[in-house]
Amino acid sequence: MGTGGAPSLDVLDRALAESRTELTTVAMRRLDPEAPGSVLDLLRRRGIKVLPNTAGCYTAGEALLTARLAREALETPWVKLEVIADERTLLPDPVETLDAAEKLVADGFVVLPYIGDDPILARRMEQAGCAAVMPLGAPIGSGLGIRNPHNIELIVESAGVPVILDAGLGTASDAALAMELGCDAVLLASAVTRAQNPALMAAAMRDAVVAGRAARLAGRIPRLRHAQASSPSR
Amino acid sequence: MGTGGAPSLDVLDRALAESRTELTTVAMRRLDPEAPGSVLDLLRRRGIKVLPNTAGCYTAGEALLTARLAREALETPWVKLEVIADERTLLPDPVETLDAAEKLVADGFVVLPYIGDDPILARRMEQAGCAAVMPLGAPIGSGLGIRNPHNIELIVESAGVPVILDAGLGTASDAALAMELGCDAVLLASAVTRAQNPALMAAAMRDAVVAGRAARLAGRIPRLRHAQASSPSR
Amino acid sequence: MGTGGAPSLDVLDRALAESRTELTTVAMRRLDPEAPGSVLDLLRRRGIKVLPNTAGCYTAGEALLTARLAREALETPWVKLEVIADERTLLPDPVETLDAAEKLVADGFVVLPYIGDDPILARRMEQAGCAAVMPLGAPIGSGLGIRNPHNIELIVESAGVPVILDAGLGTASDAALAMELGCDAVLLASAVTRAQNPALMAAAMRDAVVAGRAARLAGRIPRLRHAQASSPSR
Amino acid sequence: MGTGGAPSLDVLDRALAESRTELTTVAMRRLDPEAPGSVLDLLRRRGIKVLPNTAGCYTAGEALLTARLAREALETPWVKLEVIADERTLLPDPVETLDAAEKLVADGFVVLPYIGDDPILARRMEQAGCAAVMPLGAPIGSGLGIRNPHNIELIVESAGVPVILDAGLGTASDAALAMELGCDAVLLASAVTRAQNPALMAAAMRDAVVAGRAARLAGRIPRLRHAQASSPSR
Repeated sequence: MGTGGAPSLDVLDRALAESRTELTTVAMRRLDPEAPGSVLDLLRRRGIKVLPNTAGCYTAGEALLTARLAREALETPWVKLEVIADERTLLPDPVETLDAAEKLVADGFVVLPYIGDDPILARRMEQAGCAAVMPLGAPIGSGLGIRNPHNIELIVESAGVPVILDAGLGTASDAALAMELGCDAVLLASAVTRAQNPALMAAAMRDAVVAGRAARLAGRIPRLRHAQASSPSR
Repeated sequence: MGTGGAPSLDVLDRALAESRTELTTVAMRRLDPEAPGSVLDLLRRRGIKVLPNTAGCYTAGEALLTARLAREALETPWVKLEVIADERTLLPDPVETLDAAEKLVADGFVVLPYIGDDPILARRMEQAGCAAVMPLGAPIGSGLGIRNPHNIELIVESAGVPVILDAGLGTASDAALAMELGCDAVLLASAVTRAQNPALMAAAMRDAVVAGRAARLAGRIPRLRHAQASSPSR
Repeated sequence: MGTGGAPSLDVLDRALAESRTELTTVAMRRLDPEAPGSVLDLLRRRGIKVLPNTAGCYTAGEALLTARLAREALETPWVKLEVIADERTLLPDPVETLDAAEKLVADGFVVLPYIGDDPILARRMEQAGCAAVMPLGAPIGSGLGIRNPHNIELIVESAGVPVILDAGLGTASDAALAMELGCDAVLLASAVTRAQNPALMAAAMRDAVVAGRAARLAGRIPRLRHAQASSPSR
Repeated sequence: MGTGGAPSLDVLDRALAESRTELTTVAMRRLDPEAPGSVLDLLRRRGIKVLPNTAGCYTAGEALLTARLAREALETPWVKLEVIADERTLLPDPVETLDAAEKLVADGFVVLPYIGDDPILARRMEQAGCAAVMPLGAPIGSGLGIRNPHNIELIVESAGVPVILDAGLGTASDAALAMELGCDAVLLASAVTRAQNPALMAAAMRDAVVAGRAARLAGRIPRLRHAQASSPSR
């Protein structure tokens, strides 16, 4: 889970507990690591690992700087790389993101880039040495679900690194679908933190992810144009 | 869960255990209630209630006869009413089903009719005294999911009795969606019993139903055409 | 085309001209056949045949009465049968509609019933002697397009009478899709009469219907999960 | 229209005539400009302009070379830029394509790049000086239609150059939808040349494009969750 959007730290705390999140991403540019009573305190207390992200960066240069500050402040080489093209769409910039990914990998970072759902760009990120790819389902905060399941399937089919669905999910069935398509995890923020009852939605998402994963492993029935009786008639 | 389609009683047994089903529907016309080692034995042992159904009936008359035999054999006034129009589509016949429902209600049965997703027919069934309505998501065994979520929403909005989504579900996200649309339960058969691993799919469906129900109660975020940042930028 | 919803007779006139409609349906309950300068005058002048409809009827009895008045006033045995369940959804009532259809056929009418998209109900209407079936794509005036193309395909596959898609279309691609699914015609009202430019939308619908029909006859390429080069590479 | 995939030159000729194509794209790597009775002869005879493309190129370097050969052979600075990532998906490589576009623009070409449906990449292509952008609807030859209409809308909303939908269309309603979303044109190949009746499908596509364009200009009715009567009831 991401940590943005919650109405209060207390609400966030309960949502994180319900979600059984093991790893949380935190925007470095919106964080004061020294402040007491901060999000970081909360995560430390719960034993949730922190993945710093570069939200709010618009160029590879800004992202590099932010990642290096995060490495020093949080003592981790892991970074969720976000390089956004503009304020309105919040869509990732493929060119700046790939440029930043290459430089961060060269600098020893473990890079998890937020990208569109382009299967070829995902492959490029993997070739650049990224540790995972994080394609979007739909624009950040839109709640539209997975706009193009076909592309997510293509990404999963050829990926040699974990695929984490990031952005756009709105409800439990979206999260289940992501896992059924073969994603290794989902990253959620607004869908939980802005729900009317964040803790309950966190629980729903937790169960949906488990369900979607199990359904993929269980081998679903094929889709048929016509009916098939559940038992042969006599 | 329905009981049709499982490769063996043993597989069915494990799937029922995983699914935590409380009520199971059994086709009277495919059942010998006296046979030892039967499905009924299994259900009695697990303490799962049995809802006899009229699968295999093509007219109101056949359905009435089957329901009465079930009432005697199983000592329950509950019946899942299925009157199918033909072997190929297995779609319910709206006219025969309504006719049978009216007669069964008059005869003291608790009637749960399997119907198409027509919101007006659902209302008619309720007016006829049915205890619930069971609209399909897609043809039986097709695994196509919910073809027309809009109709299911319309049925839920105006229903004064429970709505149980019946038929057509293929995987966990379909079940979660049914609950998010406001259904009170789902009825599954082929999606579980014909999956490659029925017990695992049963577990997936159980979690998906819980997740979808929680997501509905939690109040999902609205769908937006454009992005919205998870936290306000500084 | 239906005639309801146009801001003026003049706008309707131009839309009808552009659409090259050959048959128009007119609500008997909203019509004064004697009034000069009426819709009927306009249709007579353009040589467009009039199909009276029973819009505004809520029971089989009302529909029978309206159809008989129409037969006398317009000297035609043809009737578009509409029996609506309620004001809010404007969805057709399957039970009342079938009842009315049977009685009208017995009384010598040529009956074209407006129905939901239930394939079995469509078959029942045909068995009752209806001259065509008119399933909806979506609720009247909703502009949602064809909510369940699969059902429309099932209706077309087994129909022995013309299938006319009625209600719910919003734009040209919806009309093209209806024809590609195998419908014999579409019936439009709000999508044209309430568009910002009704005459232009009428022209769009005319071309879309021609296009969709030709595309069906031309035999489209299959849908493939993966790419296929348009020419073999060397 | 593209020229690939037709079973014979004669079939292609009739399809081009029916489609009223004004501009056709031809793969330079599959062309011998000197050969008599070639595709080029056919296009010259019909007065259809030729847009050479770089199909079959996998790197920016190959695309540059092919574009320059085309400029010499066909005496046009126009080029449809295709740089494909691999044989299996035939998806465009965003990095190589942008690199090639920048170099071709610097070299005086009028560049129309084939790209994925990423709105930010489309903007980058425009910023690089491309004369149009050609996003895909779905993988080449798949016939899946427009997988992500939301992305195509985002591209159209912010584009200052023409948007031409390229690849993936399967039938007339797909082409109409592309125009309704605001595209300026569509590029078709397999959907026409591999249809059972290419000339008839070409005519269908021609009408669908006209219809979709008119529908966009006509201002469609809004989509409503509930019904709205086409005429006010009395």
